Amino acid sequence: MNTNDKHDVWLTTKRIETLVDGIFAIAMTLLVLNIDLPQSFGPVSDPAIWTYMIGLFQQLGIYAFSFVLLASFWRAHHLQFFYIKRSDSFFIWLNVIWLMFVALVPFSTNFVSNFGNHTLPMLFFNINMFIIGVIFIFIWTYANRKKFFIKEMTPEHYNTVKKINYILPSAALLAVCITFVSPLWSPVSYFLIVVLKNTFKKGIL
Amino acid sequence: MNTNDKHDVWLTTKRIETLVDGIFAIAMTLLVLNIDLPQSFGPVSDPAIWTYMIGLFQQLGIYAFSFVLLASFWRAHHLQFFYIKRSDSFFIWLNVIWLMFVALVPFSTNFVSNFGNHTLPMLFFNINMFIIGVIFIFIWTYANRKKFFIKEMTPEHYNTVKKINYILPSAALLAVCITFVSPLWSPVSYFLIVVLKNTFKKGIL
Amino acid sequence: MNTNDKHDVWLTTKRIETLVDGIFAIAMTLLVLNIDLPQSFGPVSDPAIWTYMIGLFQQLGIYAFSFVLLASFWRAHHLQFFYIKRSDSFFIWLNVIWLMFVALVPFSTNFVSNFGNHTLPMLFFNINMFIIGVIFIFIWTYANRKKFFIKEMTPEHYNTVKKINYILPSAALLAVCITFVSPLWSPVSYFLIVVLKNTFKKGIL
Amino acid sequence: MNTNDKHDVWLTTKRIETLVDGIFAIAMTLLVLNIDLPQSFGPVSDPAIWTYMIGLFQQLGIYAFSFVLLASFWRAHHLQFFYIKRSDSFFIWLNVIWLMFVALVPFSTNFVSNFGNHTLPMLFFNINMFIIGVIFIFIWTYANRKKFFIKEMTPEHYNTVKKINYILPSAALLAVCITFVSPLWSPVSYFLIVVLKNTFKKGIL
Repeated sequence: MNTNDKHDVWLTTKRIETLVDGIFAIAMTLLVLNIDLPQSFGPVSDPAIWTYMIGLFQQLGIYAFSFVLLASFWRAHHLQFFYIKRSDSFFIWLNVIWLMFVALVPFSTNFVSNFGNHTLPMLFFNINMFIIGVIFIFIWTYANRKKFFIKEMTPEHYNTVKKINYILPSAALLAVCITFVSPLWSPVSYFLIVVLKNTFKKGIL
Repeated sequence: MNTNDKHDVWLTTKRIETLVDGIFAIAMTLLVLNIDLPQSFGPVSDPAIWTYMIGLFQQLGIYAFSFVLLASFWRAHHLQFFYIKRSDSFFIWLNVIWLMFVALVPFSTNFVSNFGNHTLPMLFFNINMFIIGVIFIFIWTYANRKKFFIKEMTPEHYNTVKKINYILPSAALLAVCITFVSPLWSPVSYFLIVVLKNTFKKGIL
Repeated sequence: MNTNDKHDVWLTTKRIETLVDGIFAIAMTLLVLNIDLPQSFGPVSDPAIWTYMIGLFQQLGIYAFSFVLLASFWRAHHLQFFYIKRSDSFFIWLNVIWLMFVALVPFSTNFVSNFGNHTLPMLFFNINMFIIGVIFIFIWTYANRKKFFIKEMTPEHYNTVKKINYILPSAALLAVCITFVSPLWSPVSYFLIVVLKNTFKKGIL
Repeated sequence: MNTNDKHDVWLTTKRIETLVDGIFAIAMTLLVLNIDLPQSFGPVSDPAIWTYMIGLFQQLGIYAFSFVLLASFWRAHHLQFFYIKRSDSFFIWLNVIWLMFVALVPFSTNFVSNFGNHTLPMLFFNINMFIIGVIFIFIWTYANRKKFFIKEMTPEHYNTVKKINYILPSAALLAVCITFVSPLWSPVSYFLIVVLKNTFKKGIL
C-alpha cells in the first residue's frame, strides 16, 4: 500500500511530465507535415504559382494558430504541475486521456486546413478543443479533491487557475455555435482566450 | 570489470528510461498519422460525407484503443523500473527487443485499421501484443533471477506483478483464438485486462 | 505575484529547454523524410538510375545543409540559455514563436529541395532564416533588459554574443538579395556565418 | 576563455546526450513508417495476400535489423560518454556530423527495403554504416587526445574500446566488397560484430 503510493508519486512528478513534453514536442513538429507542397512550379509570371502561394499562406496561418494553441496547452499543463506533486492511478489515466486529445490536434488541424469552409471538419476541431478544456478542468478539480498540491498552494491561487481553466472550453463552445453560422469565422472566438486570461491574471494574482 | 558494472547500472536507471519515454511518446503521436483524410468533401447533405464520418469514427476508435494500450505498456514499464536499479548487457538488449515490438504497434494498428475485417491483419496485431506481453514477463523474471531489485522489494509484490504480467499475453492469446472465428470481435478480449488487473490489485496490494 | 515569479523561473531553466531539445531532435530527424525514393530501379547500366543518383546527391546536400543549420541554431540557443536563468510569460512566448519558425525549417527545406531553381521557394527559405535570426537577437536583448542573466555574465560577453547574433540575419538578408539574381547560389552566403563567427570568437573571447 | 570552457563542459555532459537520445528514439520509431501496407486485401485463399505476407516478413526483417543496429549505436555512444565529461566546439560538431549519418539510417533502410536486390542502394547503406563507424573512432581518439576523460579511465579500457570501435567499419567495408558480388548477402557481414565484440570483451575486460 505504502510502496504503491510511493511509486505513484514518483510517476507523477517526473514521468507524466516527460511523456507530456515528448508528445507536445512531436505534435507541434508534426503540424508542419500538413503543409502541402505544390504539384508543379512554373516561372513567377505563371498565375498557378500565385494561387498556390495564397493557399500556402492560409496553411501557414493554420500552422501558426495550432502551434500557438498547443504551446499554450503545454504551458498551462506545466503551470498546473508546478503545484501538483502527488498522484494516483486514476489521475495518471486522466492525463493520458487528455494527451490523447492533444495528440489528435495535428489531425483536426489538417482536417480543417483541407476542408475549412465546411461545417463538419470545423465542428470536429472545435469539439476537440472543448474536450481538451473540459478534461483540463477535471484534472485541476481532482487534484484539489485528493489534496495532491504542494503546501505553498493557496485557495486564492486555486480559484484563479480554476477560473482561467473555464476560458478555453467556453471559447470552444462559442466556436461550436458560430460553426453552424459560418465555419470559417468560428476560430476567431479563441482570441477571446488571450484577452480574458490577461484580465483574470491582473485581477487577482 | 568493476567499471563495466558501474556504467551498466547507470545505463539502466537513466538511459533505458529516456529511450523508452522517447519511443512511447513518438509511437503514441504517430498513431494519429494513420487517420485518413477524405478524398473530397461536398455539402453536409451529401451521403458520401456521412460514409466518411462513420469510417472516421471507426478510425478514431482504433486510435483511442491503441493510444490507451501503448499508455498502459508505458505505465507498466515504469512501475517495474521503479524497482529495478541495476542491469547488464543482456537485460538492456531484452528491453530493446521489447521496444522493437512496441514501436511496431503504429503499423499493426494501421494494418488492422485498413483491413480489420480480415483474418491475417488482426492475427498480426494480436501476435504483436502477445510477444510484447511475453517479453515483459521475461524482463521481470530475469531482473528477479539476477537480483536487480531495490531492497524495498518484497516477494509478495514480486509475485503480484508477476501475476498481473500474465494478463496481457493471456488476453492476446484469447484474441488470437477469437480471430479465427471473428476478426472484428477479437480486440474485445483486451477489455479483460482492465477487469482482471483491478481484481489482482485489490486482492493483494 | 511571488509564486508566479517562482514557477516562471522554474519553467525557463528546465521546461523551455526540454521543449527546445525535443523540437530540434524531431525537426532534424524529419528532414530525412524529404529525401525521395526512386519510382523504379533497373540494372546499374540503366541511365535512369544515374539521373536518380545525381538527384539523390543534391537532396543529400540539402539534407546535410539543413541538418547543420538546425544544429547550429540548437547550439546557439543552449549557449545563450547557459547564461539565462530567469524568465517571464512574454519571454517564454518569444521562445515559442522562435520554435515555430525552427519547426518550419523541414518544410522550407523540402520546398527548396523540390523547386530550388525557382525564386519564390528560395525566397521563402531565406526569409524563414532571417526571421529565426531576428527573433534570436530579440531574445538576447530582452533577457538583458529584464536582467535574466546569471551573475557570472559580463558586459563584454553580452556584447560578443550580440555581435555574433547579427551574423545569421545579415547572411539571410544577403541571401534574399542574391535570390533575385540567382536562387541556386543564394545559400552560399550562409557559409559566411562560419567564417565570421570564428573571427569574432578569436577577437574577443 | 574560462566561461567558454565552462559552458562547453555543460553542453557535453547533458545537452549532447539529450539530443542523441531524442534523435535515436525518433529514427528508431520512424523505421516503422517504411513498412508498406497492402494496396488491397481479399480473402485468405487469395494468392495475392500470400505474396504480400512474404514481402511483409522481408520488410519486418529489415525493420528488426535496422532497429537493432541503431540500438547498438545508441548503446555504444552512451558507453563512451560515460567516460567523457568535457568537450569543446569541434567535439560537439563531430557528434552532430555523426548524428547526421545516424538520422540518415531510416532513409538508407527504406532504400534497401525497396530495392535490396540492386547494387547501388545496398552500396549506399553499407557506406552509410562505414562512415558512422569511422566518425565514431575519431570521436574516441579525439576525446583521448584532448584528455576529455574522467579520471577513472584506464589506458587498458581505452584500448579495448578502440579495438571494439574498429569492428563496425571493418564489417561495413567487408559488406561494401560483398555488395559487388551479391547485394542481398552483404548485410550478413554485420553479424560478425556480435561475434567479435564478445571475443574482445571476454579477452580484456
